[in-house]
Amino acid sequence: MDDVEALERLISARVARLATVRPDGRPHVVPLVFAVMNGSYGPVAYWAVDGKPKAGTTLQRITNLEANPTAELLVDGYEEDWSRLWWVRASVTAREVLDAAERAQALEVLVEKYPQYRTERPQGRVFRLGVTSVRGWSAAG
Amino acid sequence: MDDVEALERLISARVARLATVRPDGRPHVVPLVFAVMNGSYGPVAYWAVDGKPKAGTTLQRITNLEANPTAELLVDGYEEDWSRLWWVRASVTAREVLDAAERAQALEVLVEKYPQYRTERPQGRVFRLGVTSVRGWSAAG
Repeated sequence: MDDVEALERLISARVARLATVRPDGRPHVVPLVFAVMNGSYGPVAYWAVDGKPKAGTTLQRITNLEANPTAELLVDGYEEDWSRLWWVRASVTAREVLDAAERAQALEVLVEKYPQYRTERPQGRVFRLGVTSVRGWSAAG
Repeated sequence: MDDVEALERLISARVARLATVRPDGRPHVVPLVFAVMNGSYGPVAYWAVDGKPKAGTTLQRITNLEANPTAELLVDGYEEDWSRLWWVRASVTAREVLDAAERAQALEVLVEKYPQYRTERPQGRVFRLGVTSVRGWSAAG
């Protein structure tokens, strides 16, 4: 799978898994809804704290990213026909979106991708995952 | 979701994502087929190096686990109806299976779970992920 197709598969995936490292050095992984847009320095994936997880506490992934902003995003396709397996992995660097204009733009791409957000727009913190590299693999070669 | 249901969902999932930490401290995540059995000290997930990845090189996940055996396994269900979202995360400690009897048993549970392995039995290294804790979440509560 070439880099263009890998990026396309990342962009179109409905869910990714975000892997981070805890302050104590152990790994952490959660499912994540996200939306990709083209930034000045390459693709950027945005995600927002929404009503799904329990509110009022700092999510473990945020604690992790504040201590170590390097992360990985994985999207994959599992089928029982293993000749159709594929995955795409992006190395990313995270930072919180604090600029109001960038936040508005991030929420716009999230709402556009996920109709679920139209009725319940995310109210929480927004994070930016700058993609530093993308690698794809498919069993079909 | 209680611990019993979380473990059941882990056991029945066809694919998980394995998060590890690279020697340089960055995270790493890959899809993984695995099979769970009850060990003397709780549930154990086995996986084997098979013909799917490129052969002849050490997989990054193995390099990582050899340096830091703590890992996480994630299984999740994504649906567009977000009231049906769920995930189960297991903290695990990895070690390679070197004992011939344990290897035979691990391959047996893998082949039993995945008919795909019946025609092409895994020939590579086998690893054991001892489950130290399991946590489940569902949007339905």
